Amino acid sequence: MSEATRDIEALIELMARLPGLGPRSARRAVLHLIKKRGQVMGPLAEAMATVAASARECATCGNIGTADICDICRDDRRATGEICVVEDVADLWAMERGQAFKGRYHVLGGTLSALDAVGPEDLGIPKLLTRIRDESIGEVILALNATVDGQTTAHYIADALEGTGVAVTSLAQGVPIGGELDYLDDGTIQAALRARKRL
Amino acid sequence: MSEATRDIEALIELMARLPGLGPRSARRAVLHLIKKRGQVMGPLAEAMATVAASARECATCGNIGTADICDICRDDRRATGEICVVEDVADLWAMERGQAFKGRYHVLGGTLSALDAVGPEDLGIPKLLTRIRDESIGEVILALNATVDGQTTAHYIADALEGTGVAVTSLAQGVPIGGELDYLDDGTIQAALRARKRL
Ligand SMILES: [Zn+2]
Ligand SMILES: [Zn+2]
Repeated sequence: MSEATRDIEALIELMARLPGLGPRSARRAVLHLIKKRGQVMGPLAEAMATVAASARECATCGNIGTADICDICRDDRRATGEICVVEDVADLWAMERGQAFKGRYHVLGGTLSALDAVGPEDLGIPKLLTRIRDESIGEVILALNATVDGQTTAHYIADALEGTGVAVTSLAQGVPIGGELDYLDDGTIQAALRARKRL
Repeated sequence: MSEATRDIEALIELMARLPGLGPRSARRAVLHLIKKRGQVMGPLAEAMATVAASARECATCGNIGTADICDICRDDRRATGEICVVEDVADLWAMERGQAFKGRYHVLGGTLSALDAVGPEDLGIPKLLTRIRDESIGEVILALNATVDGQTTAHYIADALEGTGVAVTSLAQGVPIGGELDYLDDGTIQAALRARKRL
């Protein structure tokens, strides 16, 4: 195998480590990139180098940006007294795409897990409690996943805020807009039925 | 949206154009890269830039390497008088992983298709015929996909070589090693039955 082929093999191996790509799709992606090396591969390499050099986690909320404090934490209009707690930056981005939430975030970076020995400190929950006090937060919206660990984490945070006067809410569960009942899991249907509303 | 976020958005958009990644998995991949920016993202950007600058198609066979003529075409031990015809470089790589074929390749870059107006010249079939003559090839192994277009292309090449004395063969069809009948399509089972062997 020549140097050349080794470079390509090395690239495939690095690509195959990305979530969502296995060895086979990494090979296909690299072939595609090589075919479009002018229009796609060069710009992609450059964009990646730029982001690799500049991206960092917001020291306040854990969001990803290129400054020590992220756009949302720097924006005074978002000091609404509300903090939305999410597990992951991907969830924060999903909330932002929804364009419905006007407050700030706190990214836990995971959920409490006895099995994986993840405790409140690992998730920055003490820091969240400090923020709630310092930023005079009136409402904490828990936008955690509807998994066992997500719900354990939600209850832990709710308990920690008991008696502080801070409202703790969570996203409503129900049928997604445009969702077909036939494709929903039983838990969602049950939750939607329990939360049914009079028309 | 700050410059920062725009850089990240631009990277996600470029990643989402890769085959096998949609917008959602591109976001997940970019988040993963940002989290591992030291160990993964930097090296990946570098590997991509290296390959983008050096990769090219072999002028003889269409394989991808970093020289004008690929390793396989340069290797005299592979002048076995056999050419294996494949649709795509990915198929060539699959054959090489099998380590069973010792000859050289010809990458068509597609199949004949009346619908998409792909003719023999578009696939370099005249060039293949020239190679067969110039490299004194005795056997052409057609390793084309078992699709309608793949088989049309195989028949076209076989017809073009009729009367030249060159043996034209194709890969055997049958049950994959370790393949469970229950998971195979009907066509494969029919082909395997037709090609059955006495034990
Ligand atoms: Zn922030
Ligand atoms: Zn070659």
